[in-house]
Amino acid sequence: MYSPSIQNLIKAFKKLPSVGQRTAERFVFYLLKSGKKEVGELTLALKELIDTVKSCEVCWNFSDTSPCPICQNPKRDHTTICVVADPQDLAVIEGTGEYRGLYHVLRGQVDPTDAESLTKMKVKELLEGTRNKEQGTIQEVILALNPDIAGETTMLYLEKELKSVNQEIKITRLARGLPMGGDLRYADEITLGSAIKNRIIKG
Amino acid sequence: MYSPSIQNLIKAFKKLPSVGQRTAERFVFYLLKSGKKEVGELTLALKELIDTVKSCEVCWNFSDTSPCPICQNPKRDHTTICVVADPQDLAVIEGTGEYRGLYHVLRGQVDPTDAESLTKMKVKELLEGTRNKEQGTIQEVILALNPDIAGETTMLYLEKELKSVNQEIKITRLARGLPMGGDLRYADEITLGSAIKNRIIKG
Repeated sequence: MYSPSIQNLIKAFKKLPSVGQRTAERFVFYLLKSGKKEVGELTLALKELIDTVKSCEVCWNFSDTSPCPICQNPKRDHTTICVVADPQDLAVIEGTGEYRGLYHVLRGQVDPTDAESLTKMKVKELLEGTRNKEQGTIQEVILALNPDIAGETTMLYLEKELKSVNQEIKITRLARGLPMGGDLRYADEITLGSAIKNRIIKG
Repeated sequence: MYSPSIQNLIKAFKKLPSVGQRTAERFVFYLLKSGKKEVGELTLALKELIDTVKSCEVCWNFSDTSPCPICQNPKRDHTTICVVADPQDLAVIEGTGEYRGLYHVLRGQVDPTDAESLTKMKVKELLEGTRNKEQGTIQEVILALNPDIAGETTMLYLEKELKSVNQEIKITRLARGLPMGGDLRYADEITLGSAIKNRIIKG
């Protein structure tokens, strides 16, 4: 029912994650109502994205430069690598301000339903990375994947692979415990058990 | 934490209706992962939208031509106008295949919290439209707005305005009744009352 150019844009928007027909229609008519400036901004930002964003060849984060600013930064701890599934996870950890080491972005996780998921992940690059880094040798690899089935499977797989390359390497995981504002009575047994076992000494 | 070009695109996506930081991030990283082809398609579709879509100067629907194909079609009933709030409503009514008249898109509704909503709506164009149409004079105006407060207020306002311009004009509204698959026991009193009053004779 819509004109061809409206239909094309609806089709293009529908490819975005969790955008269906209705949402895509709302996006298009919002843009049509708001006028050329907003459409121009979006077009420009998309063009800029293709033109400037590349993958950092060291950590596989997306960045305007390769190596990215984090990998280039001599003030960061080049002996520790934090492995994350996606660039968004990296951004969340950076946001805490608690981590000063390097990162490695896997760009995916082990997916039992997708035979290619193992080859799609940047695992080879991680294993090579653990051996040839410039500023200091890697001493610790933090596996910071989600504590769900895909994440746990991926971490087990990485542990095995990392150990086969370098037996000396220290492999750690994020602590499991009660989240801020959490309630003891609603915590599951695994979380609470882990929180007791790994309790923090305060003096 | 993200590179400037990623941040710019996140900002541009966040202007779309009901898109927050997280959703915008997911859109951007989805595009980065899927590669240049998908970004290119979206950029092209947006460019096409600016370049080709215009407002039909007769019915104020968005279209690649003005007048739009519906207003130009001599086979349609040019004596009936169906007034809708938005282009999406027009598409839904066209989708039923039950209507062969013309449309008028208000591009908004009466909003008591927005003093400018009255001037933003294409009401003047409707009133003028009811007087100067080429193929046949307007005999009926169907007010097809949503049966909610904004829609009812707008319809009351339009009724008054239309009657003040043309006393002879027939003004109708969409039937109120049970929706397909609806349940008598869960229908509200106004809907059920209206469904009984306007019951359909079947023989």
